[in-house]
Amino acid sequence: MNFLHLKDHSPEVLQYIVDEAIAFKQGKNAGTPLAGKGVGLCFMNPSLRTQTAFSIAAAQLGAHPVVLNFGGNTWKMESRDGVLMDGDCAEHLKEAVPVLSSYCSILGLRSFPDGKNWEEDKLEPALAAFKKYATVPVVNLESATGHPSQGLADWMTIQESIKPKGKKFVLAWAPHTKALPMAVPNSAVEAAALAKMNITIARPEGYDLPPETMAHLQSLGATVEVTSDTDAAYKNADVIYAKSWGELSSYGTVCPQDSAFRNKWTVDEAKMAKTNDALFMHCLPVRRNLVVADSVIDGPTSKVLQQAENRLHTAKAMLSFLAATRTSSTTPSELSYA
Amino acid sequence: MNFLHLKDHSPEVLQYIVDEAIAFKQGKNAGTPLAGKGVGLCFMNPSLRTQTAFSIAAAQLGAHPVVLNFGGNTWKMESRDGVLMDGDCAEHLKEAVPVLSSYCSILGLRSFPDGKNWEEDKLEPALAAFKKYATVPVVNLESATGHPSQGLADWMTIQESIKPKGKKFVLAWAPHTKALPMAVPNSAVEAAALAKMNITIARPEGYDLPPETMAHLQSLGATVEVTSDTDAAYKNADVIYAKSWGELSSYGTVCPQDSAFRNKWTVDEAKMAKTNDALFMHCLPVRRNLVVADSVIDGPTSKVLQQAENRLHTAKAMLSFLAATRTSSTTPSELSYA
Amino acid sequence: MNFLHLKDHSPEVLQYIVDEAIAFKQGKNAGTPLAGKGVGLCFMNPSLRTQTAFSIAAAQLGAHPVVLNFGGNTWKMESRDGVLMDGDCAEHLKEAVPVLSSYCSILGLRSFPDGKNWEEDKLEPALAAFKKYATVPVVNLESATGHPSQGLADWMTIQESIKPKGKKFVLAWAPHTKALPMAVPNSAVEAAALAKMNITIARPEGYDLPPETMAHLQSLGATVEVTSDTDAAYKNADVIYAKSWGELSSYGTVCPQDSAFRNKWTVDEAKMAKTNDALFMHCLPVRRNLVVADSVIDGPTSKVLQQAENRLHTAKAMLSFLAATRTSSTTPSELSYA
Repeated sequence: MNFLHLKDHSPEVLQYIVDEAIAFKQGKNAGTPLAGKGVGLCFMNPSLRTQTAFSIAAAQLGAHPVVLNFGGNTWKMESRDGVLMDGDCAEHLKEAVPVLSSYCSILGLRSFPDGKNWEEDKLEPALAAFKKYATVPVVNLESATGHPSQGLADWMTIQESIKPKGKKFVLAWAPHTKALPMAVPNSAVEAAALAKMNITIARPEGYDLPPETMAHLQSLGATVEVTSDTDAAYKNADVIYAKSWGELSSYGTVCPQDSAFRNKWTVDEAKMAKTNDALFMHCLPVRRNLVVADSVIDGPTSKVLQQAENRLHTAKAMLSFLAATRTSSTTPSELSYA
Repeated sequence: MNFLHLKDHSPEVLQYIVDEAIAFKQGKNAGTPLAGKGVGLCFMNPSLRTQTAFSIAAAQLGAHPVVLNFGGNTWKMESRDGVLMDGDCAEHLKEAVPVLSSYCSILGLRSFPDGKNWEEDKLEPALAAFKKYATVPVVNLESATGHPSQGLADWMTIQESIKPKGKKFVLAWAPHTKALPMAVPNSAVEAAALAKMNITIARPEGYDLPPETMAHLQSLGATVEVTSDTDAAYKNADVIYAKSWGELSSYGTVCPQDSAFRNKWTVDEAKMAKTNDALFMHCLPVRRNLVVADSVIDGPTSKVLQQAENRLHTAKAMLSFLAATRTSSTTPSELSYA
Repeated sequence: MNFLHLKDHSPEVLQYIVDEAIAFKQGKNAGTPLAGKGVGLCFMNPSLRTQTAFSIAAAQLGAHPVVLNFGGNTWKMESRDGVLMDGDCAEHLKEAVPVLSSYCSILGLRSFPDGKNWEEDKLEPALAAFKKYATVPVVNLESATGHPSQGLADWMTIQESIKPKGKKFVLAWAPHTKALPMAVPNSAVEAAALAKMNITIARPEGYDLPPETMAHLQSLGATVEVTSDTDAAYKNADVIYAKSWGELSSYGTVCPQDSAFRNKWTVDEAKMAKTNDALFMHCLPVRRNLVVADSVIDGPTSKVLQQAENRLHTAKAMLSFLAATRTSSTTPSELSYA
């Protein structure tokens, strides 16, 4: 049993994990299902929340977390099959992953896309190698196409804050200095669909989410509107989820940097005034006054700190879930769904 | 309750912490007041003693320490208010600090000064942001103006070694290849004042400590002499505390590198011979034969290893103190002083 | 008591450690002889297996492991005596090692050779400084001349797989893009000698192991053949241990990179076909299709993952052994051999 993408699990299993996370937050004892076990957290990119939350969650479940920075305190890893390895990768994941599996009871991987070729990036070669070669459960700590622990924390935050069913969730594209990955926007709309919200995606022409994401939303029964009319999008919104991402049709290209373009897309008070007193959400880290104005992120409906706090509780629920699938003979009944 | 600077706490509270550290060193069981809690140790600069001592102290108190290297395994942080974040900082401390507060029961920060503008550096923007935004106790792991855990370890070392009251403590400026911060010399003279020693500062003309430090020494009732006459300074000294720091009036400029200048200021046997068999102290790391001659640091009165060992015990006492102020309803009576 | 090189310990002590490692692997409770203690794992070079295995082994024995990256999260260290430290090393091991000894009950060091001057490298200045200045046991996590925890894991793997006595062990030199250290080949042939195997070293002319290694093999009573005839070497081999290393007589020079040379030395199916269905071994990380063909390392006799897994169990046995020599009054009887 792995935890790679939200779409790999039934809504019932995901709801079970969110409910467990809420219970842990409210003081339910998670026990120590990973007592004495190693948990290997592998990072090909930097991290603040994910690294800290999963380390502490693992430790609180009794495990010994080990953080490995591929390319930092350890070397770069090859993921392609059959290559002559005379380049800059000193080891193949075909060895590294089973080896780490022999030390650790659960492995996590953060692996951002290269940002050059979407057809290659969307195959998520490093995560695919972890899936293929690991002999223990693997949890995705953010890949090219998804950030499931973020999506679950987002869902949990929405569930804690409003009665989401039928409410209006707006994924609001925002400016940035880089062409960012689509992992978070994908997981955010999936979370909204799981919470049974009506989804609007407000983005500049050309910045559509991948067709695979749209198909998944459809399979979850979600209604999705896509528009570049920010007025219409913000109107009556219950949740504004801001996020920047790169253009798929011109992959890797940075968006316009002029202030007219920025002003149209930065989430500010004027736009928020059109909403139904909407919650403001963002996964963090966020570039203030570029993605969102200070007054909005510091305002009374901002949920960004609650989302981040919930990363700890969802991490614990995800690790507990994975631990239960491998160590217990009495697995939670929900497991039959997955 | 934070632990940012020695001057923020009464001499009684500081004495209590030093006494606790001595007790822990002698085998007193510190218990596990941080059992199951995260402790986040944030470093904007490298560390050996502080990182290791606080990690192990936290773990011995039951906590799960997490070491974060801002700019390394996580990104650079913005601390200025109201800026358009389109530069090299991917996150604002206004988010990062409360987020880490939601994972961790205590946060530590090491943040050296930039070394370009003292008026800006002395405001300690990163530490100020931690103070402002943290919802848990913050401990200063060395900032632009102070290194309180070093100061307490220094005081503890002096107290273990001599009866300090009324004895002569000399802060001996020393040569270096860089213009170093004033955190350690500030904390060292504060420690000497707390130990009720008479203080002499021997430094080249222009290398005075900041006026704020001198004012704090005065408020502690200390007598302080400042001189560039090394003969007079070393004469009858009971403690020689060597340390290099940069010139305040020409901030960021490296001191002269010629051997005549070095010879005048490097702590050597000839100078030590003038003392009252003085203890030799330094916070480490130390550049041998530049700051201090091998024969002195390896000599019988050198206390540098004892100072460093005491970092573990003072770290434990500081963390215990901060844990007590937040987790216990029966706080130590000393807390009323702070 | 340290664990620096296999030759520092009697075969009986080494056999005891391997037997303990096998027992731990089979479920023997190792207890928590390091409960509450720090274990400092110092790396001057990157690591995957060693870092993870020793961290988790230490934690499973009750310790708090701290990983320090000299030159990364801490600064570079000087090891030479008497120098004027005005270069790029900010601290001398003469301080750093005793200081870490005051925080930690066991210290480990990984320190690769510089690869410029063998006469200097073989003195292993950093490891020698740890040996000289540590006041707690030191374990070598790979130095210029040996990788003892790898050697023990190799011996353990051989012992688990075949009855090694009198069987043919071939150390098979392999091509690489760099002139690699001799630590692993040294430890591998020492492991084979301890397992009482007959040793053949197949290498290009000029790529001999150091005379000190050959002398150690002789002192262990091993028969050793050295050849550049790969046909003769592989014939009837029971173990093929592939490894690249640099030429001693032209130290630091990379081997020829043409495909004719590579084809002669890369371990492939054609060569393996000449063996007695030999086990294939390598310490990892390995460059596939340069050192060894995919079909061999992925083949049924490949033991590379088992070797790597055994690193955890031997690490635990080594740390237990070192802990026993310092913390227990009833040391294992085997200790009298060491």
